Parts: sequence; C-alpha cells; structure tokens
Amino acid sequence: MKVKGFLIVLSGPSGSGKNTLISRVLPRIPNLKYSVSATTRAPRSGEVDGVHYFFVSDHQFDQMIAKNEFLEWAEFVGNRYGTPRPFVEKQIQQGHTVIMDVDIQGAVQIKRLMSDVVLVFLLPPTLDELRNRLKKRGQDATEAIAKRLEHSSEELEYIVDYDYYIVNDDLDRAAERLVSIINAERCRVARADLSAIQQLWQRRQN
Amino acid sequence: MKVKGFLIVLSGPSGSGKNTLISRVLPRIPNLKYSVSATTRAPRSGEVDGVHYFFVSDHQFDQMIAKNEFLEWAEFVGNRYGTPRPFVEKQIQQGHTVIMDVDIQGAVQIKRLMSDVVLVFLLPPTLDELRNRLKKRGQDATEAIAKRLEHSSEELEYIVDYDYYIVNDDLDRAAERLVSIINAERCRVARADLSAIQQLWQRRQN
Repeated sequence: MKVKGFLIVLSGPSGSGKNTLISRVLPRIPNLKYSVSATTRAPRSGEVDGVHYFFVSDHQFDQMIAKNEFLEWAEFVGNRYGTPRPFVEKQIQQGHTVIMDVDIQGAVQIKRLMSDVVLVFLLPPTLDELRNRLKKRGQDATEAIAKRLEHSSEELEYIVDYDYYIVNDDLDRAAERLVSIINAERCRVARADLSAIQQLWQRRQN
Repeated sequence: MKVKGFLIVLSGPSGSGKNTLISRVLPRIPNLKYSVSATTRAPRSGEVDGVHYFFVSDHQFDQMIAKNEFLEWAEFVGNRYGTPRPFVEKQIQQGHTVIMDVDIQGAVQIKRLMSDVVLVFLLPPTLDELRNRLKKRGQDATEAIAKRLEHSSEELEYIVDYDYYIVNDDLDRAAERLVSIINAERCRVARADLSAIQQLWQRRQN
C-alpha cells in the first residue's frame, strides 16, 4: 500500500546529540532518507562534505538564498545553516520519510512552510549535562559555549510547538524512541491510501 | 518525569485479531494496563472470566448501565459489550496507559467522552481473509459470519475518524507497529510535564 511521505525534523540545543541519534536510527528504518544541510561553518574533525554537511562559502550560500533553494536557513553564532529544498521535496513525493536536524529557528520556519511535518524536540537531561558535553566536545570556545547555553535556555520555550520530545539521557533508549515515532507516524490514517484499502475490501463482491 | 496517562483503543472488525495482538503487546510495555470489558455473550473456548471478559447476565448488565458504570456499551449480534469506567479512569490518573479493544461503535462513543484517546484501526488484509478467519475460528454460524462481514464493510467508513491503522497481515509486524504507536504516544509533548522539564533547566542558575 502506498503511503504519503513526510518530513521528520529533529531539533534541540546544540550538543543535545542530534547527529549521533540520527546516525543510529538511519540504518534501522527502510526508506528513511537524511537531508544534508548546507553550512558556512568550518568542518569539525571527522565531518565529511556531502555526508554531514555541504560545506559552502558565504558567497555560495548567498547564491542559494537568491535562487530560493532553501527550505529554511538561519544564522547561528556567526555561521549560516540551510536545508536545500529540492532533495526533501523529491523524496517526499516518492513516499519516503525524510529526516533532518536543524536548530529550533529552522524547525519553526519549516513548520510554517510544510503542511506535513513531524517535529521532535531532543533534550539533554539537564543544562549542566549540556554544558559538560559542549566542553568535552572541545569544538567551541568557552565564550561560544556560554552563548549556546543561554540560547538553549530561551529555545526551550518553543517545545510547546513540537509534536514529540525525547530526553537524551541514554542513547540506546533515545534511538528506540525515535524509531518508534517514525514507525508510528507511518501508521497514520491521515497519510494512508484509503482508496487502496477500500478497493481491497470491495473485492469480496466478486 | 511524570507524564499524563492516556487511553489507547484498538478496534476493527470481528476476526481482525484484536485480542491476539493485545496479548502480544501487553508483556512488552511497562505500565500498560488492559481494560477488561463486560459482556453478556457466552464465553468462547479458552476465555477466562475477569481476564478476557467479565461475563455477566443480562440483568447484571442492565444494572451496570443504570449505575452509569460504562464508558461505552453496545449491542452486537444479540449480545452486549461494555467498558467499565472506574478502572480506566483510575489507571489514567496514575499516569498509566490503558489499552482496550472495542468494536467501532464503542470507539466512536469513547472518542466523544474522553478528551485524550488514541484510536487504532486494525484491518485484516482483505475481506476474504477475514471470512476465512471467522470460518476457521468456528465460533459463529455461517449466517452470523455473513452478518459480521456486511457490518465490517460498512464500518470501514469510520477509519477516517481514527489516528492510526495497522494492517494485520503478519502478527509480529502488527505487534511491532502497535508497540511503536504506544511508545511514540508516550513521547507526546502534549502529555509531558513541561514544568518538570523547565525546572531541570533552571538548575543551571545555581
């Protein structure tokens, strides 16, 4: 039975573990496609262009905005991040589920643009834990970490606009929850091909 | 974190496999409670009073109606079925998930009464398959089966009032889907204790 594709957006504060969680979940669900974002920030250690992000220059980013190629974009701590639109739209048309991670500003923008989007808020267990993770990651200066934490605290207000939340206190459990959410959303009557169901049932007349 | 309890209603045509599915799922999810229905119909082979149903007389059923003890009740093929209200309300107040199976009339009644209910429609793959199952079960006369099938065909129209659907073509896969739906619904922001989340985050001030 053909079902409608949809977009699932995982967002939450920087350091909540969005990327790790998505990489855990991707191999477990068929027809789940990751939407790679474009960013002007420098690659972190281990990040691969075209896999984790499309790393683009400021000039390239400007051009993509001008061509209306972003589903959403935002500036954060001096860098810009955006979601290329064509990939997402094509996958959804083919009935696939697209997953992406964006910050909270981006999620709010996408919800305004897309009629069928599932928003998941990923929470670190506490702000203290988030601070520890950002320090441990060692990719931001102390000042940048302080900025991120302040920002995260404000962003928590937006949780009420989300469909689901996952507390990332244990990676396995968090992955289990995200898998459940995606599989459940695939059982939505609102996305089912009701005419196909009805046709199956009409065959009894023959 | 304390979450709000809710009611999950599995319904679908007689013979779609509601009972079997629920008995598969119950041991897999903590704090999932089965709401035992009352019925005036005779026990089928293997059915235990107080476990599968409360088997009551017509007179007892009348008294329960008079005392407003039912969340819903309905008559079907000459027998009455009802959901005792106190158990469901108590479990939900304690933050548990309550699961029940009722026919489609019952589900529609419950949705009108309860503010927070999740409706799942269980579909046999085809009506032919449903006929085979009812014959194989051997608990209804040919005439009763014909009645049930006609009824089921009409009831399919109500699927649009449901949140989720599960096609029961494979019991393991159907159970997996129901588990996902319940676990996903437990991640709903609408049922989260947002003040508890916010308190965790405010601790950073200290």
